[in-house]
Amino acid sequence: MVMALEQELKLLGFVGSLRKDSYNRGLMRAAMQLLPQNVTLEVFEIREIPPFDQDFERNPPEVVKQMKGKIRAADAILFVSPEYNYSIPGVLKNAIDWASRPFSDNAWDGKPVAVMSASSGKLGGARMQYHLRQSFVFLNMHPVNRPEFMLANAGNYFDGKGNLTDGDISNRIVEMINSLIDWTKRLKTHQIQA
Amino acid sequence: MVMALEQELKLLGFVGSLRKDSYNRGLMRAAMQLLPQNVTLEVFEIREIPPFDQDFERNPPEVVKQMKGKIRAADAILFVSPEYNYSIPGVLKNAIDWASRPFSDNAWDGKPVAVMSASSGKLGGARMQYHLRQSFVFLNMHPVNRPEFMLANAGNYFDGKGNLTDGDISNRIVEMINSLIDWTKRLKTHQIQA
Amino acid sequence: MVMALEQELKLLGFVGSLRKDSYNRGLMRAAMQLLPQNVTLEVFEIREIPPFDQDFERNPPEVVKQMKGKIRAADAILFVSPEYNYSIPGVLKNAIDWASRPFSDNAWDGKPVAVMSASSGKLGGARMQYHLRQSFVFLNMHPVNRPEFMLANAGNYFDGKGNLTDGDISNRIVEMINSLIDWTKRLKTHQIQA
Amino acid sequence: MVMALEQELKLLGFVGSLRKDSYNRGLMRAAMQLLPQNVTLEVFEIREIPPFDQDFERNPPEVVKQMKGKIRAADAILFVSPEYNYSIPGVLKNAIDWASRPFSDNAWDGKPVAVMSASSGKLGGARMQYHLRQSFVFLNMHPVNRPEFMLANAGNYFDGKGNLTDGDISNRIVEMINSLIDWTKRLKTHQIQA
Repeated sequence: MVMALEQELKLLGFVGSLRKDSYNRGLMRAAMQLLPQNVTLEVFEIREIPPFDQDFERNPPEVVKQMKGKIRAADAILFVSPEYNYSIPGVLKNAIDWASRPFSDNAWDGKPVAVMSASSGKLGGARMQYHLRQSFVFLNMHPVNRPEFMLANAGNYFDGKGNLTDGDISNRIVEMINSLIDWTKRLKTHQIQA
Repeated sequence: MVMALEQELKLLGFVGSLRKDSYNRGLMRAAMQLLPQNVTLEVFEIREIPPFDQDFERNPPEVVKQMKGKIRAADAILFVSPEYNYSIPGVLKNAIDWASRPFSDNAWDGKPVAVMSASSGKLGGARMQYHLRQSFVFLNMHPVNRPEFMLANAGNYFDGKGNLTDGDISNRIVEMINSLIDWTKRLKTHQIQA
Repeated sequence: MVMALEQELKLLGFVGSLRKDSYNRGLMRAAMQLLPQNVTLEVFEIREIPPFDQDFERNPPEVVKQMKGKIRAADAILFVSPEYNYSIPGVLKNAIDWASRPFSDNAWDGKPVAVMSASSGKLGGARMQYHLRQSFVFLNMHPVNRPEFMLANAGNYFDGKGNLTDGDISNRIVEMINSLIDWTKRLKTHQIQA
Repeated sequence: MVMALEQELKLLGFVGSLRKDSYNRGLMRAAMQLLPQNVTLEVFEIREIPPFDQDFERNPPEVVKQMKGKIRAADAILFVSPEYNYSIPGVLKNAIDWASRPFSDNAWDGKPVAVMSASSGKLGGARMQYHLRQSFVFLNMHPVNRPEFMLANAGNYFDGKGNLTDGDISNRIVEMINSLIDWTKRLKTHQIQA
């Protein structure tokens, strides 16, 4: 285990909203400031990813190639996303779709993953999270069971620029990051042994 | 009811795959050739719809304005889509997201809807359909319960250009279109009365 | 429409919890006291329904025969239930399963339906409701889209005996009952005409 | 890893159908005959489990106490179940509910789990499996991602007594058992180390 602890752990993050002052982007920024030592969190920007067209899955746009490379190099994935229409935002799902194709070259394969969501509604993005979890089965990703992070009535916890202003929420982010790290090490340790 | 029968019924279709020889596009083409009298089916192309950014929901791109106008003018909606990663293709979900915002101007509100799907896998897109149905609750769309149209092992039923070659499948398409028409009239009739 | 208004409308209710002071039973009791004129709501008790065994689907226990008769005689169904383990309580699902078999004699066929839920947790039973909605597709039931009634932190709204003490919640119950009545009439009117 | 290989691994199985000649019981029987060395599979019978009543969660019936003890003693869980009404059979869900309560004494906590299903329909129980997976999140169970075992048109693979007669299906069962064993060891190894 010592080896695992000394190695840097790389998290790769995706934000499901393009809105400038997005609560979810605010959560991601907060997460970046709350990392433990030897853990990094880079965010991959999905705005420039074009609509997925399977005719180009073997010759994808440059931005998709970069995304797939970043995913492969990451030890674990963190999705932070709103819920749109009781499901995954199309813009995030489109990025997920590109990175999974061709399926013989699915970049998500085997990755540990955690999900956080914030919304101004009462359920905090829960329905989006269970749809993502169903996708993880096919993608062969391993989601953290606990905690679940769904922030309802998000307007109460951010300033006008989408910056998190609430200490309790910060603690919950730390708890989530730690859970993802533990889960990643738990799955990784065995691979080192095998 | 005579009035309803004499009125033209307008269906608006969306194809969830951008692939040129897509089975789902093939299903949609077949549907267009199998319509009863006084029913039209127009397909709205989603390829040019940019990634949804909520900062622009009140001032959307021209293509989105056109899409919302077409949806409003339609009597019912027909989605024909593959399943990507056990859920809705991002590219289709992105179109749905744009047309639903701002939510006070949700273009899908109250529309009857049917879903068809084809895939080369064993479940024929079923998981995608149940995710769409969950979105329909929020969007206040009214989906047809029966029949359900999920075409597994789709490669058996199309030629190399994605054209449907199987008469039984054509019959199932007719059955679905008729069910959508009946459901649309059932919901409409009352509105005329009220 | 006058005819429909003058006819009595019969709702049949099911409570998904057997707990004596259940919040959901409290919601159901409140609903019974908040009915408009010419609407009745009877609750069918599911406690005595044995585990479903398909070998007996054509010769079910007496209590199941009674249940199926009541369902058939009802104009619409009201489920009020907690969420157990992010899904439908087994005890409620078991009653649903019996009443649907043999499927050629599915008692739920064509019934309008509404769902209410209360829980001490943060999501108020939402995940249970979407699972029920998926079952409704197969059962050919027609659920109300709006409003959705999910009561989180239910402990705040009931006394120690599970009696509702909050006027705003009462108003939301009235709104739900009215929506179910309108939806039932909307689907029924057409049948009368056809 | 030698230690893990030498230790006996105990699987506990649950069949979701009470039908005597159930396909799913047939799958479970086949699984019991296809186990590798040092792996046992015991089936817990759920027929006698009464309807869950939360008022008795701290003083459950004897059969529930036995069930919880067996679950605790198991290294991993195997559910083999049909789909009823596009979801989990009530009779199986009821057993799951009892064993999870009170939640401070959730017997399922931390268990690796696999799911197999057979049905006479076209989807082979898929919709049931994704509902179970959602329950696993709350129960803190760790499901195998791959393979997924859904047997459609099950009538083709069993004799009149529900005995499996197809060698390819036997191979798929072996593959599933091995995947569950590997996953169990992967999660266990780390715990031994930690």
